[in-house]
Amino acid sequence: MPTLVEVARHAGVTPATVSNVLRNRGRVGDATRERVLAAIATLGYTPHLSARALAEGRAPTIALMVSSIANPFYPEFALAVENALRRSGQFLIICNTDGDPQTGRAYLDQIAGTLSAGVLVMNANLDFADLRATERRGAPVVLCMWERPHAEPGLPCVAVDFRLAGELAAAHLLSLGHRRIGVIVGSKPSGIHAARYEGFLDAMRAAALDGTAAPVRYARDTTQGGHDAALELLQTHPDLTALFTTNDLPALGAMQAAADLGLDVPRQLSVVGITDIRLARESRPALTTVAVPTVEAAELAVALLRELIEAPDGAAGVGRESRMCVASAPRLVIRASTGPVASGALR
Amino acid sequence: MPTLVEVARHAGVTPATVSNVLRNRGRVGDATRERVLAAIATLGYTPHLSARALAEGRAPTIALMVSSIANPFYPEFALAVENALRRSGQFLIICNTDGDPQTGRAYLDQIAGTLSAGVLVMNANLDFADLRATERRGAPVVLCMWERPHAEPGLPCVAVDFRLAGELAAAHLLSLGHRRIGVIVGSKPSGIHAARYEGFLDAMRAAALDGTAAPVRYARDTTQGGHDAALELLQTHPDLTALFTTNDLPALGAMQAAADLGLDVPRQLSVVGITDIRLARESRPALTTVAVPTVEAAELAVALLRELIEAPDGAAGVGRESRMCVASAPRLVIRASTGPVASGALR
Repeated sequence: MPTLVEVARHAGVTPATVSNVLRNRGRVGDATRERVLAAIATLGYTPHLSARALAEGRAPTIALMVSSIANPFYPEFALAVENALRRSGQFLIICNTDGDPQTGRAYLDQIAGTLSAGVLVMNANLDFADLRATERRGAPVVLCMWERPHAEPGLPCVAVDFRLAGELAAAHLLSLGHRRIGVIVGSKPSGIHAARYEGFLDAMRAAALDGTAAPVRYARDTTQGGHDAALELLQTHPDLTALFTTNDLPALGAMQAAADLGLDVPRQLSVVGITDIRLARESRPALTTVAVPTVEAAELAVALLRELIEAPDGAAGVGRESRMCVASAPRLVIRASTGPVASGALR
Repeated sequence: MPTLVEVARHAGVTPATVSNVLRNRGRVGDATRERVLAAIATLGYTPHLSARALAEGRAPTIALMVSSIANPFYPEFALAVENALRRSGQFLIICNTDGDPQTGRAYLDQIAGTLSAGVLVMNANLDFADLRATERRGAPVVLCMWERPHAEPGLPCVAVDFRLAGELAAAHLLSLGHRRIGVIVGSKPSGIHAARYEGFLDAMRAAALDGTAAPVRYARDTTQGGHDAALELLQTHPDLTALFTTNDLPALGAMQAAADLGLDVPRQLSVVGITDIRLARESRPALTTVAVPTVEAAELAVALLRELIEAPDGAAGVGRESRMCVASAPRLVIRASTGPVASGALR
């Protein structure tokens, strides 16, 4: 196999120039660039950037584990991660687990610590034992958007106060006069949206109301899941004037259900979500939601992962599992899907 | 650095078992698996899967170049590619170029032929010279969803007949009695949606109408782009009864513009898109569109790329640049955003 030096000799340039062409660095004129590429083609040279990265003790990519690339929040987060990584010349591998711990384990076993220097996890369905095994094999793991800043997961994480997000969303509905509020939770009762539901209960309690009396449906975290849950809730409880949903996708589905029932949003029904994905701005009516700091969380996660990758084994030891960065507080974004409760109206 | 054999000795198993644990293959009991992982942790062994893949002459990933991961079509396509790749144990790197040829070139230079064995391109903004340079450096390139089955791009490709898609969408509007149709093209006049617009013109011609007389706006291929173009079109041409849009995102934006103007879709305005992304089904009203075979195109692209990667240099030579797989024909999906033109109505 030809070497980089042979390519340089063939092209009549220095090896450094060949390296610059290969890495797209430094200033190389178009003619020189073409000559180097021609020499590479003629000699059949294959640069081993991956091998070099491995020889230098660093894997060439970062892996992002997501439970569903079809959920539009994940591409938004991936984009933010990618932007943060690109500045340091690292590449992102997106691993889609389809919410399946087995698939997640297969990805982790095959790429972590070899192809990928570290793992960002945006996925509630991965087995923590698998993540710890990944750490033991030399690839640091960072949980992105851990939902509880006051409860350590036992792995390094970036935390977002999702309980507060739920509280802000519920307090907004209460401030508009709503008292008959239906709840749609986009996970299982013990699942990742539990903290958001607790925030709802806290806001109700602060208003001297019994939140546990509000009808609740647990749905899949999708537009369809929210649609079906809202349809059922609104038909069973025709007196509801507002829906509190723990995520934007089910909230958008709830608005579709309202449209299917001929209900005007927000005149007859207010709907609030959490996250502020792009679709929240783009829907009609535009969705009132509680925005979480997506870009900031991505940047914090990349910074924390990089720190863990670069820390020598010794320094990383003590207290590593309790590393937590807390992102900025969520904030209410009032748009067109919420309004004052109609006075005297049954709905 | 410890070797795999040392790990095996330490764990009291065969090297093959260690390899099976590392690659998540074969049947390994939980206790054995734990023992191997413990030995790996104790010895600090780092398996070099990437190095091995390179030693075996194959890079460990496939790269997918997309112009915008924020466009929901691309995650849908990426998911289909990933499903096709996973069956052969290969991983997908998604490279987001932000529609910038320079960023695309940087990705190609750094990963193609080294980290990635081949490149799938779902991106009209890449410089063909850069793609050919990538090929010369040993990484085959396949254009996914090339828009013109009857015009070879000079690179291996999977073609979808987007002219036909445009023709089907326009013929549908004509069959509903629409004659005053506005056109929104989600690219520049010479851009990737030109074939779809030609299909519109062909359908008009087949109905003995002058398509070139229909007002046209060229917009960004986003919801916002379609929204702004539709708003301007509908205000300038209040007699329009239908909008032909070359992609689903601008079509969804056009429906939002109609909502902002108080126009009922489809009673006062019909809107048709092309592609059939998931949002087309989920919007209210649900979008009538022409579905293109996304999953099939992804599978064909992966199969073609694999063939090119595995072909020996000699066999791949002649005619390689003219390899084209044509995917199934697009088909009309009638939903709720199109209806018969209101008789006698100005709109």
